[in-house]
Amino acid sequence: MSRIHNFSAGPSMLPEEVLQQAREEMLDWRGSGMSVMEMSHRGKQFMSIAAAMKNDLIELLAIPDNYQVLFLQGGASAQFSLIPQCLLNGRTQAAYVNTGSWSTAAIREAGKYCRVQLAASAESNRFTHIPAFADWTLDADAAYLHYTSNETIHGVEFSAIPETGDVPLVCDMSSNILSRPADISRYGLIYAGAQKNMGPSGVTVVIVRNDLLDLAGGSVPPVFDYRQQADADSMLNTPPTYNWYLLGLVLQWLKTQGGIAAIEQRNIRKAGRLYQAIDASALYSNPVDPACRSRMNVPFVLADAALDKTFLTQAEQNGLGSLQGHRSVGGMRASIYNAMPEAGVDALIDFMAEFERTH
Amino acid sequence: MSRIHNFSAGPSMLPEEVLQQAREEMLDWRGSGMSVMEMSHRGKQFMSIAAAMKNDLIELLAIPDNYQVLFLQGGASAQFSLIPQCLLNGRTQAAYVNTGSWSTAAIREAGKYCRVQLAASAESNRFTHIPAFADWTLDADAAYLHYTSNETIHGVEFSAIPETGDVPLVCDMSSNILSRPADISRYGLIYAGAQKNMGPSGVTVVIVRNDLLDLAGGSVPPVFDYRQQADADSMLNTPPTYNWYLLGLVLQWLKTQGGIAAIEQRNIRKAGRLYQAIDASALYSNPVDPACRSRMNVPFVLADAALDKTFLTQAEQNGLGSLQGHRSVGGMRASIYNAMPEAGVDALIDFMAEFERTH
Repeated sequence: MSRIHNFSAGPSMLPEEVLQQAREEMLDWRGSGMSVMEMSHRGKQFMSIAAAMKNDLIELLAIPDNYQVLFLQGGASAQFSLIPQCLLNGRTQAAYVNTGSWSTAAIREAGKYCRVQLAASAESNRFTHIPAFADWTLDADAAYLHYTSNETIHGVEFSAIPETGDVPLVCDMSSNILSRPADISRYGLIYAGAQKNMGPSGVTVVIVRNDLLDLAGGSVPPVFDYRQQADADSMLNTPPTYNWYLLGLVLQWLKTQGGIAAIEQRNIRKAGRLYQAIDASALYSNPVDPACRSRMNVPFVLADAALDKTFLTQAEQNGLGSLQGHRSVGGMRASIYNAMPEAGVDALIDFMAEFERTH
Repeated sequence: MSRIHNFSAGPSMLPEEVLQQAREEMLDWRGSGMSVMEMSHRGKQFMSIAAAMKNDLIELLAIPDNYQVLFLQGGASAQFSLIPQCLLNGRTQAAYVNTGSWSTAAIREAGKYCRVQLAASAESNRFTHIPAFADWTLDADAAYLHYTSNETIHGVEFSAIPETGDVPLVCDMSSNILSRPADISRYGLIYAGAQKNMGPSGVTVVIVRNDLLDLAGGSVPPVFDYRQQADADSMLNTPPTYNWYLLGLVLQWLKTQGGIAAIEQRNIRKAGRLYQAIDASALYSNPVDPACRSRMNVPFVLADAALDKTFLTQAEQNGLGSLQGHRSVGGMRASIYNAMPEAGVDALIDFMAEFERTH
């Protein structure tokens, strides 16, 4: 068996230690005689797995007591629809910031439920920067302000949390949650699909401040209603139990790595070295304002696009997988989430240098 | 390692061969250098897994060409809300049949969207039988008729498909799909959570006839919209990839067992022996009309409820797990889905006889 360095944007690579533990426990979780995926979600074994998973997330993110932590289904895309339905609370508009493909998708969906006030947009700049907070326009009547803390396709990431006064701040944190510290108390609601930094796909984490919980209207199916799921500890119906278990294993792994503060330092080193290699090269380039470059997703293009296919083929041959850029923007993309070891980034940098030397 | 016989109602036991294969492929799926849960859902490897899984389901259930097969999130409970939203199509009422806890839950949710016409109900009989089709009242103006083909809590199962004329027939088949043949062409829509007969929790199968596909209204989030998901082959957003893979392994296993016709015979033998043992005993009893008894979920009570706790403790000690009845009805319940081997049922019968002899 030979494991590759997997740069997929999501679902994405997981720590090998997590996969090894899942393998060992596959037929018999700790003497229970069952796989975790065979356990009743109401049984004591699975309840203990679920509780540890939730507590580890609360600990790692330092989530304050006045927040509920929910584990739902449907992905971040379901939340694009559910957030306006749940948080408008009779208001007719919500503010959105457009920094790339994912905020664009959230805006498109919100427009079905309310007037979208565009507080800031980088669209005219082809999503290569983040508009300065001082230039944002935020209507005080907005039910909330929504932004995407990291854009996986355009490789743009916020390095600070926007200040929105009394307007609740809502964040799609799918692709950089747990990669850097975040002051949760600044947010009204955070949501994130698991399949980048937290585990396999199939779980959506929602962290919601208590005062926003009661706003959900009756038109949302109960399994997506924040209040009802909070009251049921996210078990209003059968949850995706094995996905919860794997998320829990990733969180335990993160704790053994020293938690978010330590993983952030590693992420800074990884991204720093890769951007440095790109900037120093004549063949590769990244268009994003250096102050807004993502630590998680590093898109880059080759000066000669005719070399793209050769680059990808030779990368695969060198054990570097899933480097093709998103179909909407082309080029290359290296996603280097928490689970990507520094050695994987170094192998990519070495390959890129060798490829440039020989082409 | 010692595997127990696991009688959980769901999530429930899986074939050991499936778990072994998942274990073997955990760190490296067929030389890809990746776990399936690390693969991009748009990559060629995962696309092949998804296509094989879908084709195997179509083959096993003999799903006609004029149906779409969708793999969604949210469980059957989400469908309780989505079905009326998607299928009412301007009508104001839908017909429901109440045969137990799960149809009751579906009816409660549908009542938020339309007038529910109760075509038949076994509630007055404490859900111990299924009203004869001849006694059903079906309003021709109903948008559809909904029934639950197997009630996991009350242990009641339909042995024939209701005839509803031009009114589309909708079925919650969560707990007996793939356990017996079903003429799919009789249905407008079938839905089923995976965690009983198909795999781990986190996937909901929806089989919908083409003419019903276009009815979905704009108020449903796109990821739950049958038409949009059909057009995207259930990949409008990132699906729960590992859950799909495991579902695929279960379907492959079912084919090695001889498909549905063969598994039905095994299920008939398993349920037949267990009910026979219960009926022949002075200690155990099952209240359900023999013509409507479920082959999947066998609830039974002890003549002396004071013995319940001892029964469960000793069963656990004998490697027979999760026999406690649902909290809403008490007593015992043995769920014996496809994956439960005949030896597991025989072990339970032997234990029950020995317990009766000594108490």
